Amino acid sequence: MTDKDRIYELAEKIEQGLTSEQKQELIDLLKPYKDGSIGIAQINPIAGDIEYNSKKVVRFINYAQELNLDLVVFPELILMGYPIEDTIDRHPIIVEENVKWLKQIAKITKNTTALVGFVEPRKYDHLTGKKYYNSVAVLSNGKIQGIIRKSLLPTYSEFNDYRYIEPSPVVGSQSGETLGNFAEDNIGNCPKTNIISGKKYGISICEDCWNNKEFFNDTTLYSLDPIEELSKENPDVFINCSASPTRAKKEQLKHNMLSFIAKKYSTPIVYVNQVGAIDNSSFDGSSRVFDKNGELLARAESFKEQFMIVNPHKGLGKIYPLTKGLEKTLTESKVYTLEYEPDLERTYKTIIQGIRDYFKKTGFKRAVLGLSGGLDSTVCAVLLADALGKENVFGISMPSKITSKESKSDAEKLAQNLGINFTEAPIKEMYDTTNNCLQKLFGEIEKKWDGRYKQSFTSDNIQARSRAIFLWGISNEFGNCLPIATSDKSELYMGYATINGDMSGGFAPIADVPKTKLFALARWLNKNRPIKDAIPESVILKKPGAELAIDPKTGKPLIAEDALMPYEFLDEVIWRIENKKEHYFDMINSEFLYEKNNSVSKEQKAQWLDKFYRRMSTALYKWSILPPSVIVDSRSINKYDYRQPITSSHINYKGLSEAEIADIILKI
Amino acid sequence: MTDKDRIYELAEKIEQGLTSEQKQELIDLLKPYKDGSIGIAQINPIAGDIEYNSKKVVRFINYAQELNLDLVVFPELILMGYPIEDTIDRHPIIVEENVKWLKQIAKITKNTTALVGFVEPRKYDHLTGKKYYNSVAVLSNGKIQGIIRKSLLPTYSEFNDYRYIEPSPVVGSQSGETLGNFAEDNIGNCPKTNIISGKKYGISICEDCWNNKEFFNDTTLYSLDPIEELSKENPDVFINCSASPTRAKKEQLKHNMLSFIAKKYSTPIVYVNQVGAIDNSSFDGSSRVFDKNGELLARAESFKEQFMIVNPHKGLGKIYPLTKGLEKTLTESKVYTLEYEPDLERTYKTIIQGIRDYFKKTGFKRAVLGLSGGLDSTVCAVLLADALGKENVFGISMPSKITSKESKSDAEKLAQNLGINFTEAPIKEMYDTTNNCLQKLFGEIEKKWDGRYKQSFTSDNIQARSRAIFLWGISNEFGNCLPIATSDKSELYMGYATINGDMSGGFAPIADVPKTKLFALARWLNKNRPIKDAIPESVILKKPGAELAIDPKTGKPLIAEDALMPYEFLDEVIWRIENKKEHYFDMINSEFLYEKNNSVSKEQKAQWLDKFYRRMSTALYKWSILPPSVIVDSRSINKYDYRQPITSSHINYKGLSEAEIADIILKI
Repeated sequence: MTDKDRIYELAEKIEQGLTSEQKQELIDLLKPYKDGSIGIAQINPIAGDIEYNSKKVVRFINYAQELNLDLVVFPELILMGYPIEDTIDRHPIIVEENVKWLKQIAKITKNTTALVGFVEPRKYDHLTGKKYYNSVAVLSNGKIQGIIRKSLLPTYSEFNDYRYIEPSPVVGSQSGETLGNFAEDNIGNCPKTNIISGKKYGISICEDCWNNKEFFNDTTLYSLDPIEELSKENPDVFINCSASPTRAKKEQLKHNMLSFIAKKYSTPIVYVNQVGAIDNSSFDGSSRVFDKNGELLARAESFKEQFMIVNPHKGLGKIYPLTKGLEKTLTESKVYTLEYEPDLERTYKTIIQGIRDYFKKTGFKRAVLGLSGGLDSTVCAVLLADALGKENVFGISMPSKITSKESKSDAEKLAQNLGINFTEAPIKEMYDTTNNCLQKLFGEIEKKWDGRYKQSFTSDNIQARSRAIFLWGISNEFGNCLPIATSDKSELYMGYATINGDMSGGFAPIADVPKTKLFALARWLNKNRPIKDAIPESVILKKPGAELAIDPKTGKPLIAEDALMPYEFLDEVIWRIENKKEHYFDMINSEFLYEKNNSVSKEQKAQWLDKFYRRMSTALYKWSILPPSVIVDSRSINKYDYRQPITSSHINYKGLSEAEIADIILKI
Repeated sequence: MTDKDRIYELAEKIEQGLTSEQKQELIDLLKPYKDGSIGIAQINPIAGDIEYNSKKVVRFINYAQELNLDLVVFPELILMGYPIEDTIDRHPIIVEENVKWLKQIAKITKNTTALVGFVEPRKYDHLTGKKYYNSVAVLSNGKIQGIIRKSLLPTYSEFNDYRYIEPSPVVGSQSGETLGNFAEDNIGNCPKTNIISGKKYGISICEDCWNNKEFFNDTTLYSLDPIEELSKENPDVFINCSASPTRAKKEQLKHNMLSFIAKKYSTPIVYVNQVGAIDNSSFDGSSRVFDKNGELLARAESFKEQFMIVNPHKGLGKIYPLTKGLEKTLTESKVYTLEYEPDLERTYKTIIQGIRDYFKKTGFKRAVLGLSGGLDSTVCAVLLADALGKENVFGISMPSKITSKESKSDAEKLAQNLGINFTEAPIKEMYDTTNNCLQKLFGEIEKKWDGRYKQSFTSDNIQARSRAIFLWGISNEFGNCLPIATSDKSELYMGYATINGDMSGGFAPIADVPKTKLFALARWLNKNRPIKDAIPESVILKKPGAELAIDPKTGKPLIAEDALMPYEFLDEVIWRIENKKEHYFDMINSEFLYEKNNSVSKEQKAQWLDKFYRRMSTALYKWSILPPSVIVDSRSINKYDYRQPITSSHINYKGLSEAEIADIILKI
């Protein structure tokens, strides 16, 4: 084993605790790598829990100091956790708290410098702009030596920095005395870069490094490029403190962009990312270092806290693997495909972390879900077992008279394979009682109101809602237990989910996974989990259907694809809208993957698309009350990622020609 | 009747249609007021329904042209409706559509100029910044004569303009040729103001006029003041195209601010506001004109579409009354009070409009709600009857064994008084069946899981959820019918609402009304509706309680205030947090209104505050799945207005001293 490998091995164990011999060994091994050495503190904060986050920061500073590193770097806003959203505005006490903690943390620093992100209040009298900066403090020798403030504030996707944060008018570092009173009238002439243990660092915060005009082909969100500004002082290293959640295809972009910057400026870049999930956003960590040639020198683990030691000047740094398959996506183009394989491990880990952190951070431990024998609840059960431990999951089979024998036995088999708790609770009695009561009630209402449907979903929904009453009842009766909403993305797009039924729960693990990907994920789980083939093959082979109604044509439970459209087609529509912002005629006029393999008439295609738009517009309300879920895809319908007024359901998705418009105007 | 009064009278009828004689009479009456005459087109758009909005715009342009007015002004973004949120980004076709409509509308204009708001796409190649401007086009003589672009983009409250809109780098008007291709490199040297029929207009969009440093005491959100810039060209009139929703206390601010600007620059200001509700935001209209002395010259009706004719140079303009009582609030200071009276008519109209527009714009017509005989459902029923018509409301009394006789008869009496549909549907059978099934199920679960509560809310919640199943069942079975969530603001803050129970519904009318205000509103309704005293006095007199559980101490249904704390105290805590951002010790150390009239020990106060913070932190999830509701108060918990990570429930609301923090750090 080389010295370097031994360094990596020992560093990995630092959080579990090293013996004093091991610690001394590590200190000795690190001596040749001292100049320019950096500890990457990839940690998982809890939003707003300043004490919890600060204690972690202190522990990691202590490690770095003991090992005599030059520098230890934390993710963006680490004292607060990212994102904190409007909390800081309504409860300004937590901002005061994070400043108090920062000042006390500064006092314990010695010759190892720490870069610690925090929310910085701006002076309150006669203030122009927002009340806060998103800042990083440079701490050493008991003092706050400098402060870097974020200039570029993202407002897309789930980001909303600009809502409460003022963009810094200057790039780079200002003196520590400017804490809380920085304004344009006290911008110092100090250098933008920081000298730390003899090396020059150009420090930036997250979005500040995402605006290279050349890389983004002259199409950028901001006019300022902070990295370009920092480069003018020829720093030895760029540092970027980040909180960047994982999304499909983002790895490719991030890798190429960071590599490009390092190479362009012939300057290594150290990118330190938050790990862990905060509500709907799952941060993957995977902090990394590119050398001055743009080559990857080090990459931390994904979805895991880690203290990692690197030295970009001396080639010190281990490349931990990305989630399996993801490397393949680095050069992939933007085309719809059913080849989900390269993204499945990332998908799995993103959701696992999302579930685990949501439960942990809200104080829940156990989950209860309905096991229908269908794909959605099956995959959810596997994910929950892996995230929370099989003993903490209770699967309830809740058959109705429509539920097939196969479904019941599939559910039971799955539970056995997973080792989760299982019981059966038929809903027949509840359904009958509810239905009787409702039929009587409907009779009364009909005396006053017209418009009773000949065919309705009432019966279907009673079943779904009875099941939810069982699950929420268990959550009420047993401590620390959350019911799970099992809706998938394809069905949510179609509003094919019952309010207060399957779409209700404390958490929705697969709300951002389309059905075709869910099939692929099921197969992947069967192949890649320690216990193979936990999911019965029959679950994967059968056509999805909610088993809430009988198809009058077949006399068998209704198949979802018959009620909606083929999932392969549906999922490509979703993909095109989310990723390419295509509209109706874009889709009419181009060939779908599904059309390559199946014969689809023009009329049929138009009918499916019409159905899609009609159903999507009435699904907007359901999206607005969807429980917290993990954002996985490159785009989602999660309400913190996508917002559309529910009352905008009249959008004309086909548009009109100018001649048609002129004609309408003339007739007014 | 004076000529002016006759003008106002005829103008009021213009949408219903004037006879040709009346039209000619109006044209003749307006002749002396021609120079500087302005039509204010206060209209109610549907978000994203470009055709619907454009047709209204054309109709109002036609009126103005027929009457030979100089100018007709529409609210902000009128072709799109405000807010449109992310819709324009995911469905760019609607932006193309609104440009097509704009161009065709321009073609029908003659010598009357129209100011029409629209979303303007920016040129796509090598773009810096966001993809759109929030613009107003100046249309006349068949052409787009000029374009004004919004510079100041609000991101507070429910606003999020900056998410998809680029701030204009310049103030005022640019040439019509810049449509879709405006960039810093083609900023013309044309004047910022517009000459229209010989008068000079300084035109701005909404937020652009809300940044006067003097008025806001040097504390402003932006450094640029577009009105100051426009004033340098000495315009004859300022015009502001706006979409500004109503909130408590905002009337005061708006009135004083607009008056201040007019007076400061000795220039009349014409403020044209959107009316109608879009999802959670209710826009009050009340468009107005201040003369150059800052005196109110004209004010359009509140909560109503209107075509209004003014001439700020010739004293033409009628002052329609504000909602009753609101004038009183114009000079009120920021102190907590139970004197809700001055705000009750506004509250009533805001909610009525919110319900009506949500139903109309989503295509629903009827509402069904549970009538418990309690205050919340009672007030909801009155509001629904007034918003939708009594024949479109169905009240269902759903008694359990806990429900008192009085509650049942109060519910029935209310329904009779209102003339709404009413029936009774006991939940006893459903409750018994569900409870039996659940008790069996709990027995099974107990074999595997510990942590079963000795006392739980399971039984309470079965009742609330059974009722919701009835209501959603009716919505499934009868066309165009939405169930109503009856939770009030005080109880939502405390999480005192059942998931899939009383907090579930298609719409939540009173989610932003605290309980003490609800009592005042009930009394106000009894006094001010055409049919007096619809609400039985006993409903207002009895202490609120959900009648879901028996208080073991009294043997009677549990009173909410016993489970929570006195509503007068609770509502002041909410008010202090929302309006003054106070924290725990701020509240401990100052006197509450409740304390003035009641003796409250220090321990009791601290206990209530602790309970408040504990319960609020666990209510965050419920806020995230709250149905669409009307924002009424100056602040709310509506998720489009306030966002806090659910996982941030560990916030230390008391904070720590520096010494305590130093001590913790040393022990790590």
